[in-house]
Parts: sequence; C-alpha cells; structure tokens
Amino acid sequence: MSHDIDDDDRALLRRAVELSRDHMRAGRGGPFGAVIARGGVVLAEGSNEVTSTNDPTAHAEVVAIRRACAAVKDFSLAGATIYASCEPCPMCLSSIYWARIGRIVFANSRQQAAAIGFDDEFLYTEVPKPIGERAIPTLHAPSAMADEVFAEWMAKADKIQY
Amino acid sequence: MSHDIDDDDRALLRRAVELSRDHMRAGRGGPFGAVIARGGVVLAEGSNEVTSTNDPTAHAEVVAIRRACAAVKDFSLAGATIYASCEPCPMCLSSIYWARIGRIVFANSRQQAAAIGFDDEFLYTEVPKPIGERAIPTLHAPSAMADEVFAEWMAKADKIQY
Repeated sequence: MSHDIDDDDRALLRRAVELSRDHMRAGRGGPFGAVIARGGVVLAEGSNEVTSTNDPTAHAEVVAIRRACAAVKDFSLAGATIYASCEPCPMCLSSIYWARIGRIVFANSRQQAAAIGFDDEFLYTEVPKPIGERAIPTLHAPSAMADEVFAEWMAKADKIQY
Repeated sequence: MSHDIDDDDRALLRRAVELSRDHMRAGRGGPFGAVIARGGVVLAEGSNEVTSTNDPTAHAEVVAIRRACAAVKDFSLAGATIYASCEPCPMCLSSIYWARIGRIVFANSRQQAAAIGFDDEFLYTEVPKPIGERAIPTLHAPSAMADEVFAEWMAKADKIQY
C-alpha cells in the first residue's frame, strides 16, 4: 500500500470532508465523514449519525465500514483504503483493523477534534492504561465456564475465523 | 459505581458467558457475549455476529450497546454496567466510553482471547503507537476545508453534543 498521496486520494479525502460538512449541516450528527474505496471503486460513504440514530458507535468510519461490508457481502475489506475527514478515534481505528482495511488517509487531527469538544485524545490515553487506572471501574471475574467456552471454540471444527 | 462484585453481578456475567456459548454453538460468530444492565434491569444482550452478519464491528459489546441505546432511545447509557464474557477489545472498550457506560465486569482476559486466535492484545499495542509506527500505513493530509468544517461546528448554535 502506498505511503504517498496522489490526486485520487485527494479527491476521495475531499469527498469525506464534504460529507462531514453536509451531514453536520443537516443535523445528522458531529462533523465527521468517511469514504472507503478499493481499486478505484468507492465501496461506501458514511457520516456521523450518533445523535440522529441514538447509536454511540455510529461514527463516520464505522458507518462506512458497515455499509462497505454489506455492499461486498464480506466481513473483510482487505485491500481497501479509508478516507476520513478526521483522524479515527480508537474505536474507529480498531474497527479499521478488524475490517482488515489496508490504508488510512485523514485530514483533521485528533488534537483538533479535542479542541472542538470530542474525547478522541482522552480515549487514546485511556485505552493503553492498566485496567485499574482507567476512568471506568473495571472488574475481572474469571470464570471456569468462560474458560470452557474458549476451549470449545479452539476445538470447534466448523468455525469461521475472522 | 461499585468496585466490588455482588451476586447480581455474578448472575449477569454468567448470562453473558451463556450467550457466548450458545451463539458460538449456533454458528453466529466468535465465542463472545455481553449484557448491559442499569438499576437491576437488563437493557440488552448481545453476542458476536461478525461472520453471520458480515459486520466486523458486530462484537458482542457493540451489538449490546446498539440494542440498549435503541431500547432506551438515547445515545447515552450513563449509569449502566456492561457484563462481557471476555475483556473488551479496544474497539469495544472505546464504544463503552462513547456510550458513557459506568462500569465493566468481564470474565476471560485479552491474553486468553489472543491464545485462541483473536487480535485483541495486538490491537492494544497498536492503538497507542505513533501513526508512523503502526501496521496500517496512515497518511495525514491536512485540509483547509476540513478546518473550516470544525470551526463551523464550534459556531453552530443548534448542535446536539454527545
């Protein structure tokens, strides 16, 4: 995957920014847009829909990933690039990894997101912390039954890995 | 929020583990389940549906958050606890923060997830890295138009913050 940006990249990133502007103005959610493309073909577009759909996971990148996967009928977007109007938050970044997207191009930074009131930067500091030092109380309660479920998965002959 | 685990917590965590087992056996996805409760009331249950719905973001916790938010018609689950059969991955952990969930109880650890083939531990090391050191090529292309969209959000009088 290229580490350089070409004119096609610039056009798709510009489209992501247009989505961020237009859907913000339409009142759908925060000022964020995303486009996913592969081999010169746009697979999906997304914009932030948190407040209009009551879904805190409906960030532009996640919306675009869900739509792109639905479009190609696959849980993998291997070989695709995601264009995001803003640096992905840790939720979106992780969803990009799970989707096997191969390249990320973004415009605004996480620091700019923080400056207009979004917690991306805070989340980037929370995720790597040891559990006991995070803002959300988190309790580890080991379970023999949960152990057994994992062992059953390992032994499962017909599992679909992802 | 309590840092101790009581019998109600144990029962709800056990339910999350049952979900992980039953939906794995039914072929819906990986061996993961989650329950969200608030004030003694279960708001939603979820299980991993990545492979059965072609949605790489359909981890048990994310599925449960979407359903709980739909049930209460709010993008905030403030005051709720999430019970997860396994330690949330960075995507799920971040979605828990965005949903304003107040407490996390889990059974299996991220290391156990890694041992049966899930990338949670890898993701925990990727997220905090500087962009240039991550496995996915990531390009920052600042944009005056994207700057202007953020400024417009700041100035927007009727925005719904989240």
